[in-house]
Amino acid sequence: MAKTIESHQNKIYKYIKSLSQKKNRDKEGLFLAEGVRFVSEIPPNWEVEMFVITKAFTMENDIRNFDKRAETYIVTEELFLPLSDTENPQGVLAVCKKQREGQEEIWKRDAPFFLLAEALNDPGNLGTVIRTADASGVDGIFLSKGSVDVYNPKVLRATMGSIFHVPVFQNVDLKEITLKMKEKNISLYAAHLKGDCYPYQLPLEKGCAFLIGNEARGLSHEATNLCDRWVRIPMPGKAESLNASIAAGVLMYEVVRQRLK
Amino acid sequence: MAKTIESHQNKIYKYIKSLSQKKNRDKEGLFLAEGVRFVSEIPPNWEVEMFVITKAFTMENDIRNFDKRAETYIVTEELFLPLSDTENPQGVLAVCKKQREGQEEIWKRDAPFFLLAEALNDPGNLGTVIRTADASGVDGIFLSKGSVDVYNPKVLRATMGSIFHVPVFQNVDLKEITLKMKEKNISLYAAHLKGDCYPYQLPLEKGCAFLIGNEARGLSHEATNLCDRWVRIPMPGKAESLNASIAAGVLMYEVVRQRLK
Repeated sequence: MAKTIESHQNKIYKYIKSLSQKKNRDKEGLFLAEGVRFVSEIPPNWEVEMFVITKAFTMENDIRNFDKRAETYIVTEELFLPLSDTENPQGVLAVCKKQREGQEEIWKRDAPFFLLAEALNDPGNLGTVIRTADASGVDGIFLSKGSVDVYNPKVLRATMGSIFHVPVFQNVDLKEITLKMKEKNISLYAAHLKGDCYPYQLPLEKGCAFLIGNEARGLSHEATNLCDRWVRIPMPGKAESLNASIAAGVLMYEVVRQRLK
Repeated sequence: MAKTIESHQNKIYKYIKSLSQKKNRDKEGLFLAEGVRFVSEIPPNWEVEMFVITKAFTMENDIRNFDKRAETYIVTEELFLPLSDTENPQGVLAVCKKQREGQEEIWKRDAPFFLLAEALNDPGNLGTVIRTADASGVDGIFLSKGSVDVYNPKVLRATMGSIFHVPVFQNVDLKEITLKMKEKNISLYAAHLKGDCYPYQLPLEKGCAFLIGNEARGLSHEATNLCDRWVRIPMPGKAESLNASIAAGVLMYEVVRQRLK
């Protein structure tokens, strides 16, 4: 049976609200998945701690499935608003466990395809990168320290549920990861305006990974020097650079193209 | 000599402020280009009506070039803020004429490469599409009625100055344009989840155009039926769709790849 929360002072309510801050998400290993579509994307085997829904939502939706799966709390619209990251919330959110998957499994794959990012800062960009990685079959995403938090609500929204499909590893030491890649014979390509080749000539059917940089600063020297090769996306027009998520998309889709047959 | 505006009631000030509304931009044929980088991207032959800068900006920058080019107004920070679309404005903006370029020139080109969009709604997406089109050498962008205004500040910001490089035509009748394309032997491909071919097999070295749809609804039946072929971007992973600007980017970059040699 769903329970009702009616006060801002309720302990569970305060606990859920605390998860809008990164430090509390990190401490608890939890995040908030908000909205009808996002909640419906939660895979059956994903751990959900609880659901929070509004009274209005219960009027228009069958909530028995929520109730069966995890503790479900019904709150007023007024209590829901501070939990929400949107101006017009749909009145449903899930408190989910962060992915706890280790890296072991993905390193065992044949010809894996990874994406690395250094200090990606814009939530919309990171979310879009994760969504594109999911579409293009990336085996794992590694984010350096200094990237925006994957469980930031704006990132999550832009992933359109892809956060549940692609393993994303945060606070990664790029040096360590690249050593591991060398060990496994995975070629690492830096996306760089000064690259000496286009992606189209690279042997991307083999194990490969791209490293993309910060929106404004691009890649640091240290990070670039960890890579086997620097690759440049051609720009026959007049723009001097691409949006970070577009650059990542063009590179990931070249892997898709080469692996199609 | 730069002039100073000190009152909210100043007529010129009120006129500039009115341009934050689309209907006034449309009436006057003007738009606001804001920020150091954006203003520096204005090509020498682009018509600028006036510059507006803050006192603080004049302290740290040489404004003689502004003054030579167009009437320049110095305002207080307090007066600048309501003109700006950002929270921390850099204190410089230009009132620019909208592009008045006709379509004649672009139809004369050999094997042109166009992008059409139906009801693209998200300002960030449209801006990013324009930036990517600029990078990939698109000859012109056609936007149907119901798309977000190109001169919306958020769109402009995301173009990173590419609005000055690529001709963008708004409120376009898609039916009319596609007839013109048929006449000129330009193949029109609809980006569609139910497409029957991948972009990689299309003869994109010839004159070609892609039509992309709304972020949430995709393309309408009417628009899809105007196209010669429906093309599908492969998604070997689990995501069900791509962000609209990523889909456009993948398609535009396939043209770049094929035309590289």
